[in-house]
Amino acid sequence: MKPAHFKLNAAILSAATVVGHKEHEGPLSAHFDFYSDNDRFGQKTWEGAESEMQRMALAAAMGKVDLDEQDMDLLFAGDLLNQCVGSAYGLLSYDIPYFGLYGACSTCAEGLLLASAMVTAGFAAKSAAVTSSHNAAAERQFRFPIEYGGQRPPTGQWTVTGSGAFVLTSVEAAVRPPMALVTEGMAGIVLDAGINDANNMGAAMAPAAQSTLSRYFRSTGTSPDDYDLIVTGDLGWEGGRIFCDLMSAEGYDITRQYQDCGQMIFTKNTQDTHSGGSGCGCSAVVLGGYLLPKLASGEIRRMLFMATGALMSPDSIKQGNNIPGVGHLLCLESPVIR
Amino acid sequence: MKPAHFKLNAAILSAATVVGHKEHEGPLSAHFDFYSDNDRFGQKTWEGAESEMQRMALAAAMGKVDLDEQDMDLLFAGDLLNQCVGSAYGLLSYDIPYFGLYGACSTCAEGLLLASAMVTAGFAAKSAAVTSSHNAAAERQFRFPIEYGGQRPPTGQWTVTGSGAFVLTSVEAAVRPPMALVTEGMAGIVLDAGINDANNMGAAMAPAAQSTLSRYFRSTGTSPDDYDLIVTGDLGWEGGRIFCDLMSAEGYDITRQYQDCGQMIFTKNTQDTHSGGSGCGCSAVVLGGYLLPKLASGEIRRMLFMATGALMSPDSIKQGNNIPGVGHLLCLESPVIR
Repeated sequence: MKPAHFKLNAAILSAATVVGHKEHEGPLSAHFDFYSDNDRFGQKTWEGAESEMQRMALAAAMGKVDLDEQDMDLLFAGDLLNQCVGSAYGLLSYDIPYFGLYGACSTCAEGLLLASAMVTAGFAAKSAAVTSSHNAAAERQFRFPIEYGGQRPPTGQWTVTGSGAFVLTSVEAAVRPPMALVTEGMAGIVLDAGINDANNMGAAMAPAAQSTLSRYFRSTGTSPDDYDLIVTGDLGWEGGRIFCDLMSAEGYDITRQYQDCGQMIFTKNTQDTHSGGSGCGCSAVVLGGYLLPKLASGEIRRMLFMATGALMSPDSIKQGNNIPGVGHLLCLESPVIR
Repeated sequence: MKPAHFKLNAAILSAATVVGHKEHEGPLSAHFDFYSDNDRFGQKTWEGAESEMQRMALAAAMGKVDLDEQDMDLLFAGDLLNQCVGSAYGLLSYDIPYFGLYGACSTCAEGLLLASAMVTAGFAAKSAAVTSSHNAAAERQFRFPIEYGGQRPPTGQWTVTGSGAFVLTSVEAAVRPPMALVTEGMAGIVLDAGINDANNMGAAMAPAAQSTLSRYFRSTGTSPDDYDLIVTGDLGWEGGRIFCDLMSAEGYDITRQYQDCGQMIFTKNTQDTHSGGSGCGCSAVVLGGYLLPKLASGEIRRMLFMATGALMSPDSIKQGNNIPGVGHLLCLESPVIR
């Protein structure tokens, strides 16, 4: 099936991550750059806190490689808030040409894909991708304010409070060793698998993940064994299991390589997040804080990173619509091994 | 100031437009492909109607050049609704890899810019850009349900009910005469000019338009006289005047070339739209229905199309934030003259 995958020639120079208190208490705690004990980051509103996380993440990602806004040509950003205001306000202080994205929880992969394409094609020497989510801001927008204390079903996921920022350049222009190379990518097709339960996003997104990964395997002629790791963004425990089953039905056993950022970021039995983490920030901080350093060191040689998004709104659910899903994929390779 | 403009090599093969009853009653009526007398397009909700407009627009744009979804490699789409559900649901029936955008009313230019870049760079042989807005859906989301009958101030604009879809390819791959060539582009920088009145979007967006156009003139070494037309998306009467003043203060007199889609789509004194049309659909239908045919015929030889967006949400306004603006620019040339 058309189209083929993208051939990319981009390098991720740096990444920075900012998380909330619950993520800081989780198993990946030591891998994140900044956290806030009260999830407020000194701001008066949860939405303001989310914006501040994006501002901090981009400042830190640029700072780690001695760059500042004058060095950046393009910025791709998005988040879960209505009209993506987390990004618009968070990155307002930077004078960098800005493309706003909406891919729900797939935004991290969407931004990295487009940022990689633009540096590969020479439209930008350096680009950045930033995304975020905030538990309290997302819960009150999509479900209930957290003060309400609503009960969450076992399939429900916990929106991660976190933001990740990435600085990219073309491989030729990378003046210092990058953390990872972005060698290939594939854009997702929006799918409706019939799920209309906003507390079961994993099931809504798993078919989109299967669609993209199957198309990618066919397009590249590769199989699960060609990768050290196949990571999804936030399918969680429920969606991750469904995804593995769907891939198995397509003839691909991915269980040996498969991990999910939403499963990795919280401790399953003690952090009370039910089906695991979710949100644009989930895959961004796990990739930026935990996985990219392993690619930089060569511990991971080649991996697929696929973030999936559930493209519904609170109103569309109330109007009885199903939840469409989409999944975007990147192939990341270690610069050490190559 | 960095960065320079993009050098593009894309061709717009076709465009299709769908509008509501008020746009059908306006001065450009004859130029639109489809309209609905009751703005419902056979759907039960305004949001469903908006999605249906997108579906129709893309079907028609592909159909005009004998293409269907199998021929398309990439789709860029976005709208004003929370989580961009107009696009997600409207384009769900197409099996085309999908990048969701959020640029508010700048989305038409943002989508065309990225779709042009991706075909120029060879990541896609054919791409499409689709956007929409719906008066009744936008009003109840951003201000009040239209049934409430709220009074609008003179600076207020009328959200256009409309959707435009565009099919693009690289110039080399254009097997039939295109409607227009996309030769250059420039991404906007998000700016906050201090406006926090959601009924004065023109004033909030004008500084972003000035920023992008001034940078473009400096980057290309061109001036207003190099273009037959300089068109903004929806600054309206209020914002358009401010924009011309701001450009004048920068040393550029654009009054001879300047027009605004929000001013063009409605009759000023009889259609009661106050400061003119707005919304993602406004610039999309005026460009697709009215301007592109003039480029195709050579009546317009070279023009700048710049759609601006106000990146606020209803909540961000209530929380006391200003309205950030962004403007993305395309240089469009006639294929006849070139």
